[in-house]
Amino acid sequence: MTELAVVGYGRLSIEAVARRAGVGKTAIYRRWSNKLEMVLEIVSDVAGRSVPLPDTGSFAGDLQLLLMIVSRALQHRIASQIIPDLMAEASRNPQIAETLQKALRTHQQAVGDKLIGQAVARGELPAGTDPELAVDLLLGPLYWRLAVARTPLPDDYLDKMIEAVTAALKATG
Amino acid sequence: MTELAVVGYGRLSIEAVARRAGVGKTAIYRRWSNKLEMVLEIVSDVAGRSVPLPDTGSFAGDLQLLLMIVSRALQHRIASQIIPDLMAEASRNPQIAETLQKALRTHQQAVGDKLIGQAVARGELPAGTDPELAVDLLLGPLYWRLAVARTPLPDDYLDKMIEAVTAALKATG
Repeated sequence: MTELAVVGYGRLSIEAVARRAGVGKTAIYRRWSNKLEMVLEIVSDVAGRSVPLPDTGSFAGDLQLLLMIVSRALQHRIASQIIPDLMAEASRNPQIAETLQKALRTHQQAVGDKLIGQAVARGELPAGTDPELAVDLLLGPLYWRLAVARTPLPDDYLDKMIEAVTAALKATG
Repeated sequence: MTELAVVGYGRLSIEAVARRAGVGKTAIYRRWSNKLEMVLEIVSDVAGRSVPLPDTGSFAGDLQLLLMIVSRALQHRIASQIIPDLMAEASRNPQIAETLQKALRTHQQAVGDKLIGQAVARGELPAGTDPELAVDLLLGPLYWRLAVARTPLPDDYLDKMIEAVTAALKATG
């Protein structure tokens, strides 16, 4: 992960990964036959790793926790280097694109189903609330601002987002 | 632009750009002294070019037009190749990052001010509506879905987004 963040996929070499990990090249080749295979496994592992999303007891609390976790992750040096790099590779390499998208979709679906399911069960949102739309409305703006436009978040940004998204979901449910 | 979309920034060469444009290398070097300078000018030009945003007479109409323009642009082959590539370069090259971010921010601000200004003037949104939050809520989910997760838009997606974002802005204004 660290080597990938520093040099990028294009310049990543098995030799350098082995050196950084303090093992021989053969140890790497025993597990993965090439660089693509290695990166694909790392990506599906990280992208698919489920965000710990405990039930805080209220939709507002759940949203606050989720937005905090996501905004910290997106501002982390490793994420902010690796994500754009893999997105660029994905635009030219169908295998990377498919792995990345499958992991993202599975993950997004799991988060949406849990978050919205809990809120509907608590009577905080209408039964027809769309979990996909909910996650798009929550993650999209944060990703746009932190990973694309790279504009710092104003102090009250997450609170405003929570208020905005809650109103949006109540209106469209 | 086409050459950049096909080979990516890393592999882009002045020779190939000249060949594609049907001019000599010296013609290119007369205008830009190197590849970075050339790409920076193209990026600031395209990213900063204002989206034509006519006043349709209603906030719902304005949103519909804006979301249609943005979703088409993000699905265009050239955009879907060039954007991830430049984002990746930006994560390693501060000059590209700054140019891209400045163009995006200026552009986002202009769109937000016009869109929200019109709606407030028509009495459709409260006077305190935050144009930045509005644009984040509109562009973020589309960018996330089309450029990152690359999930097709369901038929009623844009209509749902318009309803959701309008409710969100009325609640937070």
